Amino acid sequence: MTRIAIYPGTFDPPTKGHEDLIGRSLHFVDRLIVGVADVRGKQPLFTLSERVAFLSEIVSGEDRVDIKPFDGLLVDFAKDVGANLVVRGLRAVSDFEYEFQMALMNRKLHKGLETVFLVPALHLTFLSSSLVREVAGLGGDVSDLVHPVVQRALGKKLA
Amino acid sequence: MTRIAIYPGTFDPPTKGHEDLIGRSLHFVDRLIVGVADVRGKQPLFTLSERVAFLSEIVSGEDRVDIKPFDGLLVDFAKDVGANLVVRGLRAVSDFEYEFQMALMNRKLHKGLETVFLVPALHLTFLSSSLVREVAGLGGDVSDLVHPVVQRALGKKLA
Amino acid sequence: MTRIAIYPGTFDPPTKGHEDLIGRSLHFVDRLIVGVADVRGKQPLFTLSERVAFLSEIVSGEDRVDIKPFDGLLVDFAKDVGANLVVRGLRAVSDFEYEFQMALMNRKLHKGLETVFLVPALHLTFLSSSLVREVAGLGGDVSDLVHPVVQRALGKKLA
Amino acid sequence: MTRIAIYPGTFDPPTKGHEDLIGRSLHFVDRLIVGVADVRGKQPLFTLSERVAFLSEIVSGEDRVDIKPFDGLLVDFAKDVGANLVVRGLRAVSDFEYEFQMALMNRKLHKGLETVFLVPALHLTFLSSSLVREVAGLGGDVSDLVHPVVQRALGKKLA
Amino acid sequence: MTRIAIYPGTFDPPTKGHEDLIGRSLHFVDRLIVGVADVRGKQPLFTLSERVAFLSEIVSGEDRVDIKPFDGLLVDFAKDVGANLVVRGLRAVSDFEYEFQMALMNRKLHKGLETVFLVPALHLTFLSSSLVREVAGLGGDVSDLVHPVVQRALGKKLA
Amino acid sequence: MTRIAIYPGTFDPPTKGHEDLIGRSLHFVDRLIVGVADVRGKQPLFTLSERVAFLSEIVSGEDRVDIKPFDGLLVDFAKDVGANLVVRGLRAVSDFEYEFQMALMNRKLHKGLETVFLVPALHLTFLSSSLVREVAGLGGDVSDLVHPVVQRALGKKLA
Repeated sequence: MTRIAIYPGTFDPPTKGHEDLIGRSLHFVDRLIVGVADVRGKQPLFTLSERVAFLSEIVSGEDRVDIKPFDGLLVDFAKDVGANLVVRGLRAVSDFEYEFQMALMNRKLHKGLETVFLVPALHLTFLSSSLVREVAGLGGDVSDLVHPVVQRALGKKLA
Repeated sequence: MTRIAIYPGTFDPPTKGHEDLIGRSLHFVDRLIVGVADVRGKQPLFTLSERVAFLSEIVSGEDRVDIKPFDGLLVDFAKDVGANLVVRGLRAVSDFEYEFQMALMNRKLHKGLETVFLVPALHLTFLSSSLVREVAGLGGDVSDLVHPVVQRALGKKLA
Repeated sequence: MTRIAIYPGTFDPPTKGHEDLIGRSLHFVDRLIVGVADVRGKQPLFTLSERVAFLSEIVSGEDRVDIKPFDGLLVDFAKDVGANLVVRGLRAVSDFEYEFQMALMNRKLHKGLETVFLVPALHLTFLSSSLVREVAGLGGDVSDLVHPVVQRALGKKLA
Repeated sequence: MTRIAIYPGTFDPPTKGHEDLIGRSLHFVDRLIVGVADVRGKQPLFTLSERVAFLSEIVSGEDRVDIKPFDGLLVDFAKDVGANLVVRGLRAVSDFEYEFQMALMNRKLHKGLETVFLVPALHLTFLSSSLVREVAGLGGDVSDLVHPVVQRALGKKLA
Repeated sequence: MTRIAIYPGTFDPPTKGHEDLIGRSLHFVDRLIVGVADVRGKQPLFTLSERVAFLSEIVSGEDRVDIKPFDGLLVDFAKDVGANLVVRGLRAVSDFEYEFQMALMNRKLHKGLETVFLVPALHLTFLSSSLVREVAGLGGDVSDLVHPVVQRALGKKLA
Repeated sequence: MTRIAIYPGTFDPPTKGHEDLIGRSLHFVDRLIVGVADVRGKQPLFTLSERVAFLSEIVSGEDRVDIKPFDGLLVDFAKDVGANLVVRGLRAVSDFEYEFQMALMNRKLHKGLETVFLVPALHLTFLSSSLVREVAGLGGDVSDLVHPVVQRALGKKLA
């Protein structure tokens, strides 16, 4: 049995919390595909190709992880890449309800697709991409919160 | 990499929700050890050996699952059986906070032990062992909620 | 169409919050049966007949309300009295999850039984029978929280 | 006593969850007015008249239900149509807090207006209009989630 | 020890709930600075100088309170004004999670900055600036919810 | 203005989380009275005098803190010691609802008594006295979770 999991998200930008979850996922999956979602409707801070590039640099050297952009339903993406697991992090009660709804919806659309939830490292539970954008946008130091490649890109983007 | 997971609980008695979670766990673990916790302090409805017997009958024929009683810390049990994953179900927000706290505590006591959470089948999300005990104790029909072996035992115990 | 509703509870003791909910229920039901549950396992502060007597005095003069003790499943009680609605109050998020679970379980046991939830008066949302017992037990003034007949009984019981 | 209730919402688009709630409401109200709110500020997917038309087709044949658009305060709409009840569905904890706040605000603005909450069918608790828009927008199958008239309209709108 | 606290917010517009919290804060701080945040990205209903003017009129005569606009990180504003406390109100579970995250983030960015949470008067717990904007925008009476100076300004702005 | 605050609790036993909260409280109160509640009904692990002794040793050398046992209503204790503030920690959503209810009840019983909530250090948010009792009772290492004096007492008590 080969376990192929998708870790889907917007990653605008990726944070240390995302890195942590990628590491934890590798404890029980054989191959992890980080699915970077195209954002419709609202404008992301970083383009899809920038977000894919950040993650590629972050996971470089880890040959069990692939970074792939996707557009459309998660269940279709899962079929395309042959994944039977979805990995998501849970940080707070408000995460939980949305994630629960999405897990049930995805299971309805694709019976063989199971969602598993992980708890991030405690010191990263308060972290989110939107908090990083807000703090960086106001001139705060985010060096503890994101990878150096993201920190540099935030500096340029927001200068 | 062999993934050995523990699914710990009191299982007083096991429900269809527990059966569902065992089935889902087998999608991503190689071997599942259902850890039946001895209950200290308060009196369970069924003895430890009755609960182990119920689960053994429920999973009979599935050779990747073992049923084992345990007493003491979950992390010590995990070390004894060589498990590096803990599987738990999430049904509701109130589950979430307790489970989150336990997952963080167990990680603190044993760094290599990762907890993964699964969502039960939607029609089983309202089900719990205490609800089964309450309904059966009041004479309600629980045939949809538990395995026949448990239903018969409830009938005798509560007669 | 005659709407007969049950308002079930332990009412140990009844509070102003319960009185408020009875009044609100009468806006949309023809007849309300306050079902006073016998408590199994743990010892209530007031006996079943005391609790029935309190409620009978509280609703005296309102001929659309009956006070009845019950033992066993709520759905069986509903069938006995010909009720097709259950009324419950919602005060807090923690209420909500338990009530949601019970409403789904009762619907499963008796398809024609619908649970409707009401919001108590704002100034009563923090009130519960257990809080009344705790405050009165420590010598606090509960005259704003319960009917005079209950207040007198608390005084005698806890003296 | 004639019970006239409003079931207010945006219904962009109506889902099977809304249909379910209309059916449940008819167990205890004499007449149900589905109030379709004009959306200010943000652009709905379907116009007000499209949304009214969907609901009219969905409830056709049920002469105790009326579909009416409204603009302005819910309490003013309730006075206009002579309603003394508001019906709302509760699916999740996050629903609960917002609904609780609105129920208290509406009661403050119009003392005689009581809000009653219902629980949808379990298999519809994960459903929302925004989820339908998202799934349909990404090309997913929503035939189980909405009425055929809505499904066809989604197909045309999103083609 | 002089306790200088910041009460930060958008105050678009200030409500009776904000007034209540200012009063409660003065029970344990020596000096309170109401920090009116400039809003980036989305357009507020009232300009920053209008919001500062409302609050200045509301607290006039209370010489321990200052109203100051701020732009940038809260922790930088705290350093500028010499504050070591942040005061925030908690009304609901959904407030709690966001506030918890912000308190932990601010502590990380500035170790000496402690956040303390207060509970507003019960009858104001359902109140928020967005609810005031919504009710006033639909023509509802908000005289119980805001200071007369805000009520008049809402009347002009929305006429 | 002298700020005298009570930090009430059962402290069975005190944890590092309690120590953390005492330290944070001293940032904005002049004098802190740790009120150790007598436990009625259920049997605590440690006697009232043991719990008072633990805390006295933990805060020894900090002359702004007093440890006092109390029995009865918190509001009466507050009047006795001349306190106008109550300090409590918030760790989780489930804490929040109970604490909110108690803060409103205490305010009702004693208008001048304000409750302020603090957030513990992030790495202590998962900690509680009951978790310490459970882990120690099962033979786990609690040296990171409690003061050495408590650790030694747990060792003796549970041997």
